[in-house]
Amino acid sequence: GQPLVVIAGPCVVEALDICRRIAETVQAACAELGLSYIFKASFDKANRTSIDSYRGQGMDEGLALLARIREEFGCPVLTDVHEPDQCALAAEVVDVLQIPAFLCRQTDLLVAAAATGQPVNVKKGQFLAPEDMASVIKKLASTGNERIALTERGASFGYHNLVVDMRSLVIMRELGCPVIFDATHAVQLPGGRGTSSGGNREFVAPLARAAAATGIDGLFLETHPEPEKALSDGANSLRLDDVQTLLAKIKEIHGLVS
Amino acid sequence: GQPLVVIAGPCVVEALDICRRIAETVQAACAELGLSYIFKASFDKANRTSIDSYRGQGMDEGLALLARIREEFGCPVLTDVHEPDQCALAAEVVDVLQIPAFLCRQTDLLVAAAATGQPVNVKKGQFLAPEDMASVIKKLASTGNERIALTERGASFGYHNLVVDMRSLVIMRELGCPVIFDATHAVQLPGGRGTSSGGNREFVAPLARAAAATGIDGLFLETHPEPEKALSDGANSLRLDDVQTLLAKIKEIHGLVS
Amino acid sequence: GQPLVVIAGPCVVEALDICRRIAETVQAACAELGLSYIFKASFDKANRTSIDSYRGQGMDEGLALLARIREEFGCPVLTDVHEPDQCALAAEVVDVLQIPAFLCRQTDLLVAAAATGQPVNVKKGQFLAPEDMASVIKKLASTGNERIALTERGASFGYHNLVVDMRSLVIMRELGCPVIFDATHAVQLPGGRGTSSGGNREFVAPLARAAAATGIDGLFLETHPEPEKALSDGANSLRLDDVQTLLAKIKEIHGLVS
Amino acid sequence: GQPLVVIAGPCVVEALDICRRIAETVQAACAELGLSYIFKASFDKANRTSIDSYRGQGMDEGLALLARIREEFGCPVLTDVHEPDQCALAAEVVDVLQIPAFLCRQTDLLVAAAATGQPVNVKKGQFLAPEDMASVIKKLASTGNERIALTERGASFGYHNLVVDMRSLVIMRELGCPVIFDATHAVQLPGGRGTSSGGNREFVAPLARAAAATGIDGLFLETHPEPEKALSDGANSLRLDDVQTLLAKIKEIHGLVS
Repeated sequence: GQPLVVIAGPCVVEALDICRRIAETVQAACAELGLSYIFKASFDKANRTSIDSYRGQGMDEGLALLARIREEFGCPVLTDVHEPDQCALAAEVVDVLQIPAFLCRQTDLLVAAAATGQPVNVKKGQFLAPEDMASVIKKLASTGNERIALTERGASFGYHNLVVDMRSLVIMRELGCPVIFDATHAVQLPGGRGTSSGGNREFVAPLARAAAATGIDGLFLETHPEPEKALSDGANSLRLDDVQTLLAKIKEIHGLVS
Repeated sequence: GQPLVVIAGPCVVEALDICRRIAETVQAACAELGLSYIFKASFDKANRTSIDSYRGQGMDEGLALLARIREEFGCPVLTDVHEPDQCALAAEVVDVLQIPAFLCRQTDLLVAAAATGQPVNVKKGQFLAPEDMASVIKKLASTGNERIALTERGASFGYHNLVVDMRSLVIMRELGCPVIFDATHAVQLPGGRGTSSGGNREFVAPLARAAAATGIDGLFLETHPEPEKALSDGANSLRLDDVQTLLAKIKEIHGLVS
Repeated sequence: GQPLVVIAGPCVVEALDICRRIAETVQAACAELGLSYIFKASFDKANRTSIDSYRGQGMDEGLALLARIREEFGCPVLTDVHEPDQCALAAEVVDVLQIPAFLCRQTDLLVAAAATGQPVNVKKGQFLAPEDMASVIKKLASTGNERIALTERGASFGYHNLVVDMRSLVIMRELGCPVIFDATHAVQLPGGRGTSSGGNREFVAPLARAAAATGIDGLFLETHPEPEKALSDGANSLRLDDVQTLLAKIKEIHGLVS
Repeated sequence: GQPLVVIAGPCVVEALDICRRIAETVQAACAELGLSYIFKASFDKANRTSIDSYRGQGMDEGLALLARIREEFGCPVLTDVHEPDQCALAAEVVDVLQIPAFLCRQTDLLVAAAATGQPVNVKKGQFLAPEDMASVIKKLASTGNERIALTERGASFGYHNLVVDMRSLVIMRELGCPVIFDATHAVQLPGGRGTSSGGNREFVAPLARAAAATGIDGLFLETHPEPEKALSDGANSLRLDDVQTLLAKIKEIHGLVS
């Protein structure tokens, strides 16, 4: 089978030295374990809970930093896009475009992303059944671009809580695309802190193991050397020091089921 | 108290004569009952389930039709916007801008809509707790525009189903904004028909009555003379012939609780 | 149509004078409004969250108190049963047997209750779709007893929360039985306080109004002169002083829709 | 660590030769893999969806058959109890008493089961948060019996559907008890077939693998040589021929994480 893909980075674009530290650590772990590594960072967090939260450095600076990481480390990079206009510009720099979960039904955005010809990774909306991603695939594939991946990041489960339905990984794989498990957004508690989202980092590792045992093609992780100082989503980011141990375990489990 | 506001129209912009028939019928019912009427239609359905579904006539034609209805009937009109760029243009024509539920956390869209100075009606995301709309209000109000309404249209309840939590109407009213109940989207069954969404028109009236008894400031309805022929969302649209009877009952209930 | 039935009392059997005060107040309100009154109290709370919680006075004392209220006030009384053996004994004293929500699928209990020939009120399980109550009705009716009522008390909505799906009232009425809305259990927050269940009394009135506007045959309420001192479920009990006002409003709404 | 426990058998007590075939096959697989085997069968299905469904042979015959399997195969046996009176009688024959999910809050049943001194396995209710099982443990432990296991079998997720929240395995283990994953009830679709429950056998294996990777102490399975002919729950029973392969994989995954 294919080697497992690891998509990992800070939530939002952070200072260059932090991005470098993350890329270096995860790339080394992936190299040792024989996994494929893609660096991720968002140039803009367009849907933060609060208007006072940090959103990122803006598109130009963000893409510049992604280009730099790409060049320095020789690894592919991924970022998410929020409006059709951003797709072509981002696609000049990054290797994979990502569609955020809330936007997974926006036809124009999907079509603009796919029309760039770059691979597109779509996060399944928290409000969507896994089989409904078939319509999302059809929208993307209408452009002729069939390099599509689907990502599970949890489904709405009452208020302020998400649940990962592991059946969704099976169902989405049957749609014919590689399936990624986003282990850090899956443990978010939306709005759980009043004016921001909470999270339970302790569940990242067991959920990632469970997903790997169900059967996945890739693992998505947000990580930070000091999550408590992260500019976004610290509560659910994995501590950078813990990435190597987790990836080693995931690789073993993946080896058993693929 | 204030008279109840009724926001009603076809789902998507339909042929002019159908729009006229709807506006005429609902306006007459509202006039008779002493309710405020706002005509609604979407110039674009940017997140239809399937890429093959009808999306609308496009922005220019759609806004032109809304302007015409506005002029002919002398009633305010509402439409929804999906990208920041659309807000200023739409605000020149319509009296109220509406933010779709999936997009209710997109900061740029919210800010662009509010910055037009026009009233903004935000549909609460199916993935959001009602108290989390406080952050949405804050984003809008950061522009200085405080003419904000919030709309309940159901919360995710497992797959392919929505539930209306009537507590949300109480909670959102406590946030200080008028609260609208969207009785026709609330009965949608997302993805319930495989490649399109289903709906249960039979529940529109009982849910609208329940919401009115809980306490609301407005009622949102999609209606069509022949819902089975509607270009979008026919399964959950109210039959135009049934609008008058429903509004009369809603008015009575509203009178008892306000 | 039939007058609305009001089933109200303390959660668990309390001291005689408290039961009397409740019966007297609610009976007077119902008499004034032309509503039917049934006194309710549980002789045993067989499924309290914590083993340290008060469970009641036991069956003998509990039934004796119910008999006394019945005699003194001349009103029918209702209690819930938890095991098949209890049904015949309880049926000698009370006018309606009630099946708790968690037990609504226990075939032997349903059959034993219906076999007494007394009317049976079944609370819909928090885990059950409303249409699935058809199978519950069939179990009861297999005894030849068709005096059956169904009660909505909320559905599981993630953890520690219930949502009232007002569609369930419509669906259960279509099954051919009178439908009751339990306005105080519907606002429970299961396990919400760690070792006991919490509740939000403030939603009792709006949810009761919503249910009445949807269409119901009866309203179930737990009430207490001083809910903060109630031996069980105080957080969601309605203050006795507020019962008359609520019933007056419910009656008006009920009148509009029946 | 401890070897993984496998609790497996038919749903309800079937003909002796079918029970023998199941016990023989699973016992052999467990012996080969170094797993502990417990045979399970229910003498009575007290909460079948429909009153017309097969319920079992009754307590006397059912316990007699369990005793016979126990003697012939030398393996411990488990059955579930539904009323306090049944506990002492069942405990004379079986090695583990099991509390059904709907009944997991019934204090008298829990106490009667634990008071027998036999180990008690409680299935977490579909309506309960995992941390709320702490109160269940306290009820059992109030008898002095601390041989308690907790089983995950899915949580209500809208209507007619269950979702397995893998976090619950972590949370319940932190309560200090061994945790079992019930892989076949977890794939039930409650009421999914109108007058009976449906199920999706295809998800048994991936969910069992996921649970094992999360971390469990035991696996619960219902199995049948010909599930389509099973007297109960055939739609979600695992084919007996598939048990060995699944257990081998589960053992490997369990070995990686314990």
